[in-house]
Amino acid sequence: MTEFLKKAKESSSIIATLEGKRKSEILQKMANALEKEKEAILTANARDMAAADENGLNDALKDRLLLDEGRIAAMAQSLREIAALREPVGRVLEGWRNDANLRIEKVSVPIGVIGVIYESRPNVTADVGALCFKSGNVAILKGGKEAEHSNRAIATVLEDVLEVEGLPREIISLLPDSSREGVARLIRQDRYVDLIVPRGGEALIRYVSENATVPVVKHDKGLCHTYIHKAADQEMAVRIALNAKCDRPGVCNAMETLLVDRAIAREILPKLSAAFEAAGTQLRADEEACGIIEAALAGDEDWDTEYLANILAVKVVGGLEEAIEHIRRHGSGHSEAIVTEDYRAAERFLDAVDAACVYVNASTRFTDGGAFGFGAEVGISTNKLHARGPMGIDELTTYKYKIYGQGQIR
Amino acid sequence: MTEFLKKAKESSSIIATLEGKRKSEILQKMANALEKEKEAILTANARDMAAADENGLNDALKDRLLLDEGRIAAMAQSLREIAALREPVGRVLEGWRNDANLRIEKVSVPIGVIGVIYESRPNVTADVGALCFKSGNVAILKGGKEAEHSNRAIATVLEDVLEVEGLPREIISLLPDSSREGVARLIRQDRYVDLIVPRGGEALIRYVSENATVPVVKHDKGLCHTYIHKAADQEMAVRIALNAKCDRPGVCNAMETLLVDRAIAREILPKLSAAFEAAGTQLRADEEACGIIEAALAGDEDWDTEYLANILAVKVVGGLEEAIEHIRRHGSGHSEAIVTEDYRAAERFLDAVDAACVYVNASTRFTDGGAFGFGAEVGISTNKLHARGPMGIDELTTYKYKIYGQGQIR
Repeated sequence: MTEFLKKAKESSSIIATLEGKRKSEILQKMANALEKEKEAILTANARDMAAADENGLNDALKDRLLLDEGRIAAMAQSLREIAALREPVGRVLEGWRNDANLRIEKVSVPIGVIGVIYESRPNVTADVGALCFKSGNVAILKGGKEAEHSNRAIATVLEDVLEVEGLPREIISLLPDSSREGVARLIRQDRYVDLIVPRGGEALIRYVSENATVPVVKHDKGLCHTYIHKAADQEMAVRIALNAKCDRPGVCNAMETLLVDRAIAREILPKLSAAFEAAGTQLRADEEACGIIEAALAGDEDWDTEYLANILAVKVVGGLEEAIEHIRRHGSGHSEAIVTEDYRAAERFLDAVDAACVYVNASTRFTDGGAFGFGAEVGISTNKLHARGPMGIDELTTYKYKIYGQGQIR
Repeated sequence: MTEFLKKAKESSSIIATLEGKRKSEILQKMANALEKEKEAILTANARDMAAADENGLNDALKDRLLLDEGRIAAMAQSLREIAALREPVGRVLEGWRNDANLRIEKVSVPIGVIGVIYESRPNVTADVGALCFKSGNVAILKGGKEAEHSNRAIATVLEDVLEVEGLPREIISLLPDSSREGVARLIRQDRYVDLIVPRGGEALIRYVSENATVPVVKHDKGLCHTYIHKAADQEMAVRIALNAKCDRPGVCNAMETLLVDRAIAREILPKLSAAFEAAGTQLRADEEACGIIEAALAGDEDWDTEYLANILAVKVVGGLEEAIEHIRRHGSGHSEAIVTEDYRAAERFLDAVDAACVYVNASTRFTDGGAFGFGAEVGISTNKLHARGPMGIDELTTYKYKIYGQGQIR
């Protein structure tokens, strides 16, 4: 493995200085190659699907795993979109002259070698490989065991293009040792690896965070709240709450707990209850709310549960500060929303709530690289440092200072 | 300790939203209080100095430890300067409207709770506490055992001001358990602590990096190179090399290895040798350079040694690419310089060298928050992520997105 990581690190200086136009051309060629080699990819995928049958994977997982012509075309299309993104390397982020008349420029540069650990969907192999490539990074990919053959076939197509273009195959490659021990070693190789991005279940993320010496950008849980303030436009509030919970209950930016201001609880809770009943949402409410609407009684653990399902915890709060305090205790720092027409309440909520994304009068479902307008989505970070919230391709870069002198000494 | 950390975390929401003017006023009061309480501080310092004598600390360490009226006045002055810095919280870093007409603002916010581990100089207690305070963060300080009483006295002065101002004392405080076990626990409390900044020897930094689950900003070693290209202004090259090595040999931005282009080696090495001899610098040169000037023969380990002393490794290289390759293998990613009048060589060096600060025609000694014009220096990061290179107070902030809607749903 050390030999492999050494080569990956060495390759990083080549891809880091490759000009933007060349990178785009190569990504186009990779897209074409994926379409041309679709038979090989489908054959490999069939092997994974057969193994999935043998291992009794459920239908949802099998659907995530399955490739067909349409999905390969979508994968190629995604590469073409990444190719068309604005060049992320070499942006001048700041620039000034210091007292010694040095011209100092803060310039975006690739991070170096990025290890990405993910599960199931084989298209991630192409997507993440392409995003790292476009941003000048070497990608070390560790997909799920269930997608082993598909990932290998896709990676081989990309690597072959690299080789034809005279570049090291190591610029995009699968981790050679894909066992648990392989991952354990990868995340401690801070000499060769600059960033680890784990995408997957809580257990994986926790394991990586606790054991890595390489910096980690986590995509952790989203326990998102919507607080309906007493001065809310109630019709808007119902619409936003319904969307935040029900649009896609299984994703991290979906609402898990609804906080309702006591001053309007008797008025709005029945409307909310009716709307959620129609949407098939199971409500778990605190005692006070249960006195107004029909719902299961929530237990303490409900305020800390990310349901990832069409279930909603509901709580009546005494006012703005109690809502902020509840979010401080139970929120995951992902996305939090207030619905209000009150200027002061909006400002206070925006300032006081410590989360990647804080909304006034909008659904938390907008926390997403695509919705933010980033062009490509790398993920949604629950880190506070380096990248926070939706990550676009720019978040796969860091910076360096270029300093232009005329002989200055101190 | 958990109780203490809990309180620290809770206090972070209070300091995070304190307005800039109040923070500056309180810092001014802290400066005044340090001067008013100087007797108590000097008494405490005398105890540390007596213990230092007993424990046989060397003179350099004792000088770092010593406080007197002048040094207390300087500490107070430093707090006043920090008070006068531009408010670091609430800067709008970016802003745009997305496709759904949401107004999205990326705004600087405090990181939260910052643990700083440092050694010797007691003024760091006041300085780091003030920098964290100004940037809206809670500071947990862990100073060296040798400065225990001085640090306690200084922290008490700051905490007393906080209390008089109606703020929790935990906003700036010393780690209650200052043993090795206390540090070991602190760096794994990612639930309560958001960032660890270790300032000290390599062993400490390595220990913290390997064991922390909290993100770490390292102030690691600086193995800086200066490469004299064949098209250098030779007089300038000698001046820059001399300054980079000799201005302060014991600091991380000092040059450790000088790379000289073969094409001009016979001409410039004697000039360099004369200049360094006059400065009392010990040269350790490769075989080729030893054929031209008198110097000790360098061994392989010299290319990887941060001397932090008036010693310089000298190597002749075949040209630009060999210099870049040598830096890639042996550099620490801190500060690297080329001296050249050649446009292409300068551009290539700036692009290809992967370091926090890359210089053309200037001394690496400029890598410093003060020299960069940051007003206050938090340190010099050798991380690639979050903060890279000189850290000002802005690097003690992260960001969040504030999103202003009118009822948008997805």
